Amino acid sequence: MVSVAIVGKGNVGFHLYYELKKKNLNVAQFSSREQHQLKTFDVAIVAVSDYAIAEVSKNIECPLVVHTSGTTSIQGLKNPGRKGVFYPLQSFSKEKLIDFSKVPICIETEQKQDEKLLRFLSEYLGSDDYLMTSTQRNYLHVAAVFASNFTNHMYEIAKHLCDRYDVPFQILFPLIEETAQKIQQLSPNEAQTGPAKRNDLKTIRNHLHLLADSHKEIYQLLTGSIQKYGKKL
Amino acid sequence: MVSVAIVGKGNVGFHLYYELKKKNLNVAQFSSREQHQLKTFDVAIVAVSDYAIAEVSKNIECPLVVHTSGTTSIQGLKNPGRKGVFYPLQSFSKEKLIDFSKVPICIETEQKQDEKLLRFLSEYLGSDDYLMTSTQRNYLHVAAVFASNFTNHMYEIAKHLCDRYDVPFQILFPLIEETAQKIQQLSPNEAQTGPAKRNDLKTIRNHLHLLADSHKEIYQLLTGSIQKYGKKL
Repeated sequence: MVSVAIVGKGNVGFHLYYELKKKNLNVAQFSSREQHQLKTFDVAIVAVSDYAIAEVSKNIECPLVVHTSGTTSIQGLKNPGRKGVFYPLQSFSKEKLIDFSKVPICIETEQKQDEKLLRFLSEYLGSDDYLMTSTQRNYLHVAAVFASNFTNHMYEIAKHLCDRYDVPFQILFPLIEETAQKIQQLSPNEAQTGPAKRNDLKTIRNHLHLLADSHKEIYQLLTGSIQKYGKKL
Repeated sequence: MVSVAIVGKGNVGFHLYYELKKKNLNVAQFSSREQHQLKTFDVAIVAVSDYAIAEVSKNIECPLVVHTSGTTSIQGLKNPGRKGVFYPLQSFSKEKLIDFSKVPICIETEQKQDEKLLRFLSEYLGSDDYLMTSTQRNYLHVAAVFASNFTNHMYEIAKHLCDRYDVPFQILFPLIEETAQKIQQLSPNEAQTGPAKRNDLKTIRNHLHLLADSHKEIYQLLTGSIQKYGKKL
């Protein structure tokens, strides 16, 4: 059986430890400040902030050390032994239990044998795994900012507009869900609707008239971008 | 029992007719080009394009005429009789059956008795209804553009980045779903994560470096906007 040391007590470290422990894997958790004589473990998962990866990893003596970062290259690890990446693509918060069947894991290793070990771990968690280079992971991370952080900001602006005019925000929940679901059947380009897509200038003008300057700027830029994509594809 | 005439054979007309018929309401459907002697019906629902509402409604003789538009004021109807609005907030497509329990309906009437009738219809469809003025509906419509069209465009850009670097887009589906679900428990402001929110300049710089100019502009504007909202609230 594989034995795992988790280094770091933040959100990712907490959830990985909790889940592996629950499933009876041989797992132990360490803080990132402890001495790291981890020779007896098969793999050490360094789940710390991006900026701390080099510093923390350099002192870890373990046959294989992996980090969990979307933006850090595999070469960001400074341990003397073998290196890898085990990046769970999901937003974690400590208050909420994680369903690992909904957490895809991006794996990168220097050696084939380590790939096997990390895929075993991912499967053990119940996750789908994807082999990916550091470059691909870097682009995936910026794609995730669009798909999650920026999307959430669109919800934030929508809520702001609703609040201001006493419209209950919850009225938008079914539409938001449908929009998120639809792209599992259609591509986002095929799924697009609305005034920008059908070049409905009267509605666009009306909307711009309703919006404050900061929102107007976003509305204009995204409307133009939707129209460019409509032509391109 | 209430009797309903549906005028218009587009997506909204089709789905309303189909659903009411299925549920055995007394309902008939007419094309928008037919003569409209609809005096024997209790209500005529004009489900046509925004620009056609005035022209189509002006010839309808029915005690109550309502339109289904998010952006048109109740005064956009030109029928001689009573007026109202019955606006289903969802994106309809003909190929896909609609679950009306997930279609909130925004109602506006000039007279209380008509409000009762429209709420009965909404309940009959299994929908939640919301009383709303034309002004509120107008702001809701622009909020929906942010929450749905612009959000879908964020997915589109994310897919573009994934495709370009051979990363399967589906890897983002769980994150997209989680982002859409989360705001039913937390406000979008509380739910926000990512480099803009935590002012992680190193990651932001790295992302900007990866993006083409058109995406860079969107990234910068939305990052700035997230940070403004972070301070404001």
